[in-house]
Amino acid sequence: MLYHPAVDHGGALDRAIARFGGVRSDWIDLSTGINPWPYPVPALPADAWTRLPDERGLADLAAAARDFYGAPAEAPLVAAPGSQALIQLLPRLVPPGEVAIVAPTYAEHARCWAVAGHHVRTIGAEALERDPADVLVVVNPNNPDGSVLRPGQLAALAQAQAARGGLLVVDEAFAEVVPAASLTPWAGMPGLVLLRSFGKFFGLAGLRLGFAFGPADLVQCMNAAFGPWAVAGPALAVGRTALADRAWAAATRSRLAEAARAHDDILSAAGLAPAGGTDLFRLARFADAGPLADRLGRHHILVRRFIDRPDRLRFGLPPDAAAEARLVAALCNKD
Amino acid sequence: MLYHPAVDHGGALDRAIARFGGVRSDWIDLSTGINPWPYPVPALPADAWTRLPDERGLADLAAAARDFYGAPAEAPLVAAPGSQALIQLLPRLVPPGEVAIVAPTYAEHARCWAVAGHHVRTIGAEALERDPADVLVVVNPNNPDGSVLRPGQLAALAQAQAARGGLLVVDEAFAEVVPAASLTPWAGMPGLVLLRSFGKFFGLAGLRLGFAFGPADLVQCMNAAFGPWAVAGPALAVGRTALADRAWAAATRSRLAEAARAHDDILSAAGLAPAGGTDLFRLARFADAGPLADRLGRHHILVRRFIDRPDRLRFGLPPDAAAEARLVAALCNKD
Repeated sequence: MLYHPAVDHGGALDRAIARFGGVRSDWIDLSTGINPWPYPVPALPADAWTRLPDERGLADLAAAARDFYGAPAEAPLVAAPGSQALIQLLPRLVPPGEVAIVAPTYAEHARCWAVAGHHVRTIGAEALERDPADVLVVVNPNNPDGSVLRPGQLAALAQAQAARGGLLVVDEAFAEVVPAASLTPWAGMPGLVLLRSFGKFFGLAGLRLGFAFGPADLVQCMNAAFGPWAVAGPALAVGRTALADRAWAAATRSRLAEAARAHDDILSAAGLAPAGGTDLFRLARFADAGPLADRLGRHHILVRRFIDRPDRLRFGLPPDAAAEARLVAALCNKD
Repeated sequence: MLYHPAVDHGGALDRAIARFGGVRSDWIDLSTGINPWPYPVPALPADAWTRLPDERGLADLAAAARDFYGAPAEAPLVAAPGSQALIQLLPRLVPPGEVAIVAPTYAEHARCWAVAGHHVRTIGAEALERDPADVLVVVNPNNPDGSVLRPGQLAALAQAQAARGGLLVVDEAFAEVVPAASLTPWAGMPGLVLLRSFGKFFGLAGLRLGFAFGPADLVQCMNAAFGPWAVAGPALAVGRTALADRAWAAATRSRLAEAARAHDDILSAAGLAPAGGTDLFRLARFADAGPLADRLGRHHILVRRFIDRPDRLRFGLPPDAAAEARLVAALCNKD
């Protein structure tokens, strides 16, 4: 097995604490794109914890997911313990070949395809339609810059990939806040794999729940590889309830949109240039991004840096007014 | 990809309800070997649900697991979303070869090794030491008959396997109730993979938590295949607390042992011959086991049948006196 360096993920608060001190409860973690106002975890039936997750619970969750995501009622679907588990698995089920990934983007795609023995290239979005790779990978909307490709364009591309025995993988981890960008109405079409993440929009990343829509044979392979009981009982129960709560989802979309605009104002006022993002995170450009991130670290605020793009920082949304005030102070303080 | 028929698992209550009627809350499910008196789920910190599970939480869980299972303090360890996930993964990481499984036993081992392209044979326990297979698989204590192989014998076998580049896989899914049978003191030795299940003894099968101990390079491969955040935040939190609660474990061992004896008395009184088991489930022999299982089904009691052993039934422990009384009545009723 070929090893690839682990990706330095947002969320690794411990390393920041080791470097800058403080205790965990002091820190404001803005390094992820996870909604800071989570769906309230409902009281769970005891058997969500005690029993093996059963087929009916899984079928109910799948139905709720198809409905929430706007997929056809019979679209083949895998439920998994997090979309990362799907990103890990998919490359192992596809014969080794050429993989082209629209970059810069979430680095786990390149790592996982390479680890599984594929030849991985990164490309610009403009090259997508003429690239001859067996597998094309797009994150839509993209992380970290938020750029969006039109779903109609991507559906046509999936059709072209299918015609020559290839695949288009579209990771829609942040598509809840840009629902018009989603390809879920095309879920199940040949050549198209769609990944969805439950934890980011619903603010429940600890729950580990994600979905893949795809052609029936590939979905069958993925389900066989996970085996029975891959999704925990609490994730089945919370997922089903949350996905059915359209009022919460609508209110959350509005709240996130408003917070994202306010967040851009804060960053602009501090001299950072908006450089894209989604309503779940904002990307900013700043010539001295490294020293600025260190200064925020000294104020016990963690943001996301990019080794290969030293003039960019990604900011999650501050969870409350106190966190926002600390961010403003840290951005303005020239210590 | 080669498909193998799905295993008919205990726990598939829905099919029984479809056949015999009733509603779920009516049914007594004795088809699994899951402790009916679960560890009480403690109040969870909010960030177990909301944050990505972090490295520190995983390290704390691993330390608690090594300690509880009696493994060396540095034994390489994988935490996974259920021991089934480990059974699914392991065969994909080992080069295709000859696999010999001591049978009859938990059918997922044979299915998963075969699906991954290995040549699978079943053998009797007495043939274990002279079998030339690349991989030997033993469930210890065995499910469903409860037979136990001595850990010293198995450690010597692992050493012999290692000397010729092979593996011994020991699934200790039910070893909490036979701690003296466990190989965990040898965890990390070359040639030995040990699987442990959290959900059965702790009665929390919905949580999805299991562990593999093994040689460092194989453990590294397994962790790489799962990727980050494979175990959910609630599983990390509950697992760590439960594994540290030695008083609960000791009391539970006593309670299960007493319940298993009482359960055998019930089965014997109804004319079923005890045929082994562990304190988490009892195996019984009865010439007309099929019709008896159907009669129990009509009384809305689900037990485990074995297609290839029509004179055996496996019974989990009744959760309370009312369930016990219903079982007694159903066993004696000749309708």
